[in-house]
Amino acid sequence: MIRRLCIVGVGLIGGSLARALRAAGVVEEIVGTSRNAAHLQRAEELGVIDRFDTDIAAAAQGADLVFVSVPLGAMRAVFEALKGRLAEDAVLTDAGSAKASVVEDARAVFGEVPACFVPGHPIAGTEQSGVDASFAELYRDRRVILTPLDNTDAQALARVRALWESAGAVVTEMAVEHHDEVLAATSHLPHALAFTLVESLARMSDQREIFEYAAGGFRDFTRIASSDPVMWRDICLANRNALLAMIAHFTGDLAQLAELINEGDGERLLEFFETAKRARDAFAG
Amino acid sequence: MIRRLCIVGVGLIGGSLARALRAAGVVEEIVGTSRNAAHLQRAEELGVIDRFDTDIAAAAQGADLVFVSVPLGAMRAVFEALKGRLAEDAVLTDAGSAKASVVEDARAVFGEVPACFVPGHPIAGTEQSGVDASFAELYRDRRVILTPLDNTDAQALARVRALWESAGAVVTEMAVEHHDEVLAATSHLPHALAFTLVESLARMSDQREIFEYAAGGFRDFTRIASSDPVMWRDICLANRNALLAMIAHFTGDLAQLAELINEGDGERLLEFFETAKRARDAFAG
Repeated sequence: MIRRLCIVGVGLIGGSLARALRAAGVVEEIVGTSRNAAHLQRAEELGVIDRFDTDIAAAAQGADLVFVSVPLGAMRAVFEALKGRLAEDAVLTDAGSAKASVVEDARAVFGEVPACFVPGHPIAGTEQSGVDASFAELYRDRRVILTPLDNTDAQALARVRALWESAGAVVTEMAVEHHDEVLAATSHLPHALAFTLVESLARMSDQREIFEYAAGGFRDFTRIASSDPVMWRDICLANRNALLAMIAHFTGDLAQLAELINEGDGERLLEFFETAKRARDAFAG
Repeated sequence: MIRRLCIVGVGLIGGSLARALRAAGVVEEIVGTSRNAAHLQRAEELGVIDRFDTDIAAAAQGADLVFVSVPLGAMRAVFEALKGRLAEDAVLTDAGSAKASVVEDARAVFGEVPACFVPGHPIAGTEQSGVDASFAELYRDRRVILTPLDNTDAQALARVRALWESAGAVVTEMAVEHHDEVLAATSHLPHALAFTLVESLARMSDQREIFEYAAGGFRDFTRIASSDPVMWRDICLANRNALLAMIAHFTGDLAQLAELINEGDGERLLEFFETAKRARDAFAG
């Protein structure tokens, strides 16, 4: 049971967790905080949080669980606001989409990464953002990756695991660097490609006509380019190395495809597409 | 009213048109043909066609409308089979995803592009293929692009337009080359990117684990990589120049994004993502 949950950043991610834990009946009180009083006001109106305070330290006071779901670029400032103000039994966790940068932020602010801090990342979300888009089922049957460090307190880890399991998620653990590589491949690179494709077409002179002839495949393919630009700017900067490596890898593979097309090598093109279709069908099934 | 419609290649595209025209009550008889008797048998069982013949010329005999929906690589052989065997009042049209190559095939086979031939392309489809995936509503409110040539018979054009409108589609006309450029941008490039991404990840050693952590965004983004490999091999070869130009364009834009990430230029990254999001949201709305 969580006595008092403090959620820093009550948007799609934080709001959905609040709704899920409330629905599961595992939390007594939820306090929201962020820099935006209007957003917090809205979250209170929706019943997602019980009360709010735009002062982060005040909001976290007496909380036994502090959940930070802000863009990666805002993490360090949140840690600074929390420094020396956490309750003695408090567990701190986050939802950042890259983990090395968050761990680095924690180390920079606290001197060493606190034993009570459990870095985490729910592999869930939609292209929507904000508390109005939040819903209790967002995490149901979704993966949550926790990346504990050597000094992470075992009990803190167990509490964060239980938190996510109460929300219906499937929790796994992996090393910080491995997380960042896996996510660069499955999430950060696809977003970079979708944003680039849409930006590229938008700059072409006859963009209106081009979008007019785009069909359902294009719609699906580019849906993720509707995601929050601030969040994605921060992810690109925070997971810079792994993402740049994946972009370089992909660029090489695309050049190879272009070479097959240029050579008119139908046999190897077919092989290329068959490999991809098999992998995609296996994934879907 | 179509007296006898001959459909060459009764898969998702041909089958859905047959169903739509039947539902609209504008066709008396539908004859299917292709090289695969089992597929044709299945189409007959489903009631999509009235009868079939694996001999293309025999199937097209007496047809006043011949619709060719085979992969682009099979177009030329179909034209060869039809040469000299079309009824005098017959109109010929196709559904190829690239138009210059089809026009070139027609020219090569018939000496000049027949006046009765109206090159066309329905901007519709799913990642499924085969007659079992066909449905009457596939073309409802979807775009169909016709690319008539200078010598195309006006009445033939009017009949093909009416055909698609009966299926619920919105018909527009454009020049062959322009069609191929627009489709390279909105369809062929996105497919190339999705296939490449999945193929790329599939070759990474820990592929199983990687796909395990892929979320809904990845699912949407890569759905089109489940499309028919033969069809896409043929499109890449048929629309080689326009597609290679788009891949080069995209590669340049991706390199620019990588440069912004590498430089840590948050301001321009944000701008990049905001431009993309605006364009994508406008498209969706």
